[in-house]
Amino acid sequence: MVKAGIIGATGYAGAELARLLLGHKEVEIKWYGSRSYIDEKYAKVYGNMFQLVEDTCLDDNIKELAKQVDVIFTATPQGFLAGVLTEEILQDTKVVDLSADYRLKDVAVYEKWYQIPHKSPQFLAEAVYGLCEVNREKVKKARLVANPGCYTTCSILTAWPLVKEGLIDLNTLIIDAKSGTSGAGRGAKLPNLFCEVNENMKAYGVSTHRHTPEIEEQLGYALGAQATINFTPHLVPMNRGILVTEYASLREIRQADGSMALPSYKQVKEAYDKYYKDEYFIRVLEKGACPETKWVEGSNFVDIGFQIDERTGRVILMGAIDNLVKGAAGQAVQNMNLMFGLPEQEGLRLVPLFP
Amino acid sequence: MVKAGIIGATGYAGAELARLLLGHKEVEIKWYGSRSYIDEKYAKVYGNMFQLVEDTCLDDNIKELAKQVDVIFTATPQGFLAGVLTEEILQDTKVVDLSADYRLKDVAVYEKWYQIPHKSPQFLAEAVYGLCEVNREKVKKARLVANPGCYTTCSILTAWPLVKEGLIDLNTLIIDAKSGTSGAGRGAKLPNLFCEVNENMKAYGVSTHRHTPEIEEQLGYALGAQATINFTPHLVPMNRGILVTEYASLREIRQADGSMALPSYKQVKEAYDKYYKDEYFIRVLEKGACPETKWVEGSNFVDIGFQIDERTGRVILMGAIDNLVKGAAGQAVQNMNLMFGLPEQEGLRLVPLFP
Amino acid sequence: MVKAGIIGATGYAGAELARLLLGHKEVEIKWYGSRSYIDEKYAKVYGNMFQLVEDTCLDDNIKELAKQVDVIFTATPQGFLAGVLTEEILQDTKVVDLSADYRLKDVAVYEKWYQIPHKSPQFLAEAVYGLCEVNREKVKKARLVANPGCYTTCSILTAWPLVKEGLIDLNTLIIDAKSGTSGAGRGAKLPNLFCEVNENMKAYGVSTHRHTPEIEEQLGYALGAQATINFTPHLVPMNRGILVTEYASLREIRQADGSMALPSYKQVKEAYDKYYKDEYFIRVLEKGACPETKWVEGSNFVDIGFQIDERTGRVILMGAIDNLVKGAAGQAVQNMNLMFGLPEQEGLRLVPLFP
Amino acid sequence: MVKAGIIGATGYAGAELARLLLGHKEVEIKWYGSRSYIDEKYAKVYGNMFQLVEDTCLDDNIKELAKQVDVIFTATPQGFLAGVLTEEILQDTKVVDLSADYRLKDVAVYEKWYQIPHKSPQFLAEAVYGLCEVNREKVKKARLVANPGCYTTCSILTAWPLVKEGLIDLNTLIIDAKSGTSGAGRGAKLPNLFCEVNENMKAYGVSTHRHTPEIEEQLGYALGAQATINFTPHLVPMNRGILVTEYASLREIRQADGSMALPSYKQVKEAYDKYYKDEYFIRVLEKGACPETKWVEGSNFVDIGFQIDERTGRVILMGAIDNLVKGAAGQAVQNMNLMFGLPEQEGLRLVPLFP
Repeated sequence: MVKAGIIGATGYAGAELARLLLGHKEVEIKWYGSRSYIDEKYAKVYGNMFQLVEDTCLDDNIKELAKQVDVIFTATPQGFLAGVLTEEILQDTKVVDLSADYRLKDVAVYEKWYQIPHKSPQFLAEAVYGLCEVNREKVKKARLVANPGCYTTCSILTAWPLVKEGLIDLNTLIIDAKSGTSGAGRGAKLPNLFCEVNENMKAYGVSTHRHTPEIEEQLGYALGAQATINFTPHLVPMNRGILVTEYASLREIRQADGSMALPSYKQVKEAYDKYYKDEYFIRVLEKGACPETKWVEGSNFVDIGFQIDERTGRVILMGAIDNLVKGAAGQAVQNMNLMFGLPEQEGLRLVPLFP
Repeated sequence: MVKAGIIGATGYAGAELARLLLGHKEVEIKWYGSRSYIDEKYAKVYGNMFQLVEDTCLDDNIKELAKQVDVIFTATPQGFLAGVLTEEILQDTKVVDLSADYRLKDVAVYEKWYQIPHKSPQFLAEAVYGLCEVNREKVKKARLVANPGCYTTCSILTAWPLVKEGLIDLNTLIIDAKSGTSGAGRGAKLPNLFCEVNENMKAYGVSTHRHTPEIEEQLGYALGAQATINFTPHLVPMNRGILVTEYASLREIRQADGSMALPSYKQVKEAYDKYYKDEYFIRVLEKGACPETKWVEGSNFVDIGFQIDERTGRVILMGAIDNLVKGAAGQAVQNMNLMFGLPEQEGLRLVPLFP
Repeated sequence: MVKAGIIGATGYAGAELARLLLGHKEVEIKWYGSRSYIDEKYAKVYGNMFQLVEDTCLDDNIKELAKQVDVIFTATPQGFLAGVLTEEILQDTKVVDLSADYRLKDVAVYEKWYQIPHKSPQFLAEAVYGLCEVNREKVKKARLVANPGCYTTCSILTAWPLVKEGLIDLNTLIIDAKSGTSGAGRGAKLPNLFCEVNENMKAYGVSTHRHTPEIEEQLGYALGAQATINFTPHLVPMNRGILVTEYASLREIRQADGSMALPSYKQVKEAYDKYYKDEYFIRVLEKGACPETKWVEGSNFVDIGFQIDERTGRVILMGAIDNLVKGAAGQAVQNMNLMFGLPEQEGLRLVPLFP
Repeated sequence: MVKAGIIGATGYAGAELARLLLGHKEVEIKWYGSRSYIDEKYAKVYGNMFQLVEDTCLDDNIKELAKQVDVIFTATPQGFLAGVLTEEILQDTKVVDLSADYRLKDVAVYEKWYQIPHKSPQFLAEAVYGLCEVNREKVKKARLVANPGCYTTCSILTAWPLVKEGLIDLNTLIIDAKSGTSGAGRGAKLPNLFCEVNENMKAYGVSTHRHTPEIEEQLGYALGAQATINFTPHLVPMNRGILVTEYASLREIRQADGSMALPSYKQVKEAYDKYYKDEYFIRVLEKGACPETKWVEGSNFVDIGFQIDERTGRVILMGAIDNLVKGAAGQAVQNMNLMFGLPEQEGLRLVPLFP
């Protein structure tokens, strides 16, 4: 039995971790950390947990916690983990960090986009970027996993095979992303009130959103070179779900007859198959199908569809995830499974909820 | 391994059965019946099932199906099962009927409220009303279970202990019920369009809704006498969830000192505890708490709260369920578990999804 | 041209006042008061007002304001107006108060339900309860109007003619009310976050909601006697709209042939017609129709329907309003029109927005 | 008084026309045409119109209607008007067509994208594309106006000044559009059911949507050359509102010092000001602001914002409209005002509804 602690257990991602771990037969939650609700019953903070969780929220003493558990999940604001992490802690326990602290390898990039100093850059080299389908083998050996952001998970996985295979020009990539409101967290802020969000839509963080460098870095690895892209997030009136629509110019590739031509539907499909054929959590839809966020709700799936536009020479990629599952807690559990040698899908064979 | 068939697998209740049974380790679904989608892939009708269900929808030959499976779930329109059920079928298989065909013992009441003739009243005596917490022992021995309606499940369970213990005057009972839109089914009807339902609320079926006699019959059993009540359903803009608010005049009961007085909070609470203390799926909330449908979403729980109003001598009861789970497919699986001697909670230990 | 000032202009009711007054050809808004946004541009606080309102939010100096305008609307928290109102102010200007400060004639009742002392009870006798259809003539002569609450407006108008005509037993009245979330105001509170409200429903303030005594007082006037009722509000996931469902036992009345019998559909309808036939803003629907909140959205209408249940001897009344219009700002403007001798419908002939 | 007839009065666009024309003091609606509801009371089909419209729906005899009214609005399926329009009709009345029949000048393009033959191409030359802000003078003299599509109105107006001034490379233009569900019409189709749309998002018509050639044609006029673009519509769970996010590479322009450089914020803003400074219905937001659909709901406004991304050399444009107002009925009324010499804003000075 893996003993787990959650720091930041009362945010939406923390609560989703609790939901998933309660259904995971190899894990026991030992610690519900929450600075905002110290000494309150967890089930008071999340009424869905009534009679399912009897624990009380605790303060977040990570050093003490590390001695008690096998793995710590930190679902905390940027800068928290970097401010408290020590070698001693990592010798006591494994850590899956749902914040951005160890996602970007370049501390200067981190400090520029997040506007805070990084307090423990010494762990950056060791930290594994926990995009399981891409870094599976590294995750298995990791002590410290940087769990990818919600937008980034969806954005990267949707484009990865095409970048890797050189089918698109990465510098032309434009990602138009739409997210449900749980991604904005449980903070009591006016823009997240029901009446402000409901029956409303808007873009935000245009050209400045922090997931941009994360996508650029990872897709840069796929390409083997640096590139700049556009990423624009939007807020839509729903609880869960991220949909990305990605646009890129196709690159001519050598065809069977030796000529150069834009890739066909079949060739793009083959690229996806090459990387994702055996991936349980990635579902490349049938020709012509467009992913819908509702088809993945509550599950760890990534649904992907694409359409070639011959008129413009572009391909339009579409990806859908549940931002709290594959975009946060689900992927964190998937990483934990890998780190502890458990079956990767344990606790995550969730059938999407419809309607 | 219990072999199961679903007739009406492409309605919302049928799809929820599929979701739950896919996660049930003792059941295998052998038959996805759907008149509307014969020969179409089930995963085309419900995109969430992509790569999870490879089956194709079949016509609904119940006689043939009965020979192949251990249990049939009928999630079909009123009158369907009554029109095809035979003794032969019941000798071949067990049946859990999610329609109303065998819920009302009095065929005249059925025909009056449903406005169709009942074609096989000979099975009415045998059919067990599948409200598990009330009729558990009978369900265990049943061949034919009438799975209760969504509104009725919530309405009855919320009031049952108080009626049973004589704490309220049943003839004063008024049930004001609110439901998400999945209860209206997947039929393509104008009133169920997004733009008609969203940002809108209304009552419907006022004083004529078919769940009224079902509630009256069952609560009449609890009382040991007939009674008439008011039941008013409302449509609200959400997918899942039923909330009932019930009003009844309290009856004076004999107190410890021999005097007669209205029951106290403690006395009402004790009535609930007497019947529900060991019921996993019924959660009587703490004093002052009001149930929220979101706290039970995706789960088989019934959440109950109550408030005594001393000014008017009434008690206000509140109950919340997920209409597709405890109000339909979940309770059907719970009944199946009982009928086959499986652990009652098997496949149903679902943590509610929040948010 | 009537010069108007709004104190509390940045709450939802204040913003709706601004919307309505901008479309009112006899009114000019001179003052947007808002303690929270002093010196900020109003159109920054409400983006819909961009290029429509150039004003900046001001502090709420009511004494100074009274000298500048003909009417002040106070859309402020309970206790504010009672704490600042003086005879001098009322000599300078008329006041329409959207808070509860002058709604209840009995200061003890106010202090019990609102749990704050009343600082200027000397104006209670003078204040007119601004339910226009009931108190029209008094409003015309008023200096100080207490604009009714949202729930109360809908609850009272729906039942008024039946109480007045003695058709129902007021002590049996149970009001089950459902409201959109704008009624909860624009405060940044966790329970009002999108993810907490969306796909959720709950009752609140059960047996303790402050609109209860207001309804009892006004319907008591109609009856000519005191009565106690049950009132239960619910929160539903939509922006605007209140729906009330009211249950009451019918009283036998003398029929044409001299016998006593419960009133018929026709007799109930005649009661409504007697009071509302010429009321532009009250629409009593056709037989069998149930009001929908969407049919009144954005307008000042009250839609009413009813159904007699002969089985239980009760009548079920249904009423729908837009809580921000007839339930707040619209009725405030209607009161202002009456107070200034303007056509009662001026600025309020708004066609409901659908969908 | 302008006498108006509506053909297709019971679709959402037709109903919005009714709402707007009822509030227009120079217009009288003489004819509510609806094939689906012949002889039914209009207020039965749209309950919001109860006691506001007493008319009954009529069949759509356009020839007869043309003799009775000054203007006909056709809110009908593609191909309807083209199939019935005659010179005789246009001599009797003016026509504002909300369908696509006369939007594309090239009949081959129409037939390719709409997959139906065009039955009256002889009127294509005469028809004026009714984008008021662009074609105002032509509209004033028109007998037949092709009212632009909802997506196209928003897409074109958002980009127009930048194309016209040569600030962007039109062939790099990518339009990612998101729409509320009223754009899908009032047809009773499964994909538009509440439970299918709510808590869901998807792209559709990827690279094949019919508004694509309309945008290309009109922006081609602005450019003075043909271009191909990408346009991808998405469905989001809300009633009203379109948001477009447009991406394009900036073109270097000659600067004051003679050098070539990408345009600055100020230069892009000046382009907008040049064309829109005096346009009442177009609101170019302040620097850094992103349009929200809620800020224009129920109104005829187009809100526009933009952001330059120096990293990629692209500009991101954002535009928001109410699809039923500026995207359909509102623009139709604006066109009518121009055609009849009425003040352009008559009946359209609607303050957006918030929340």
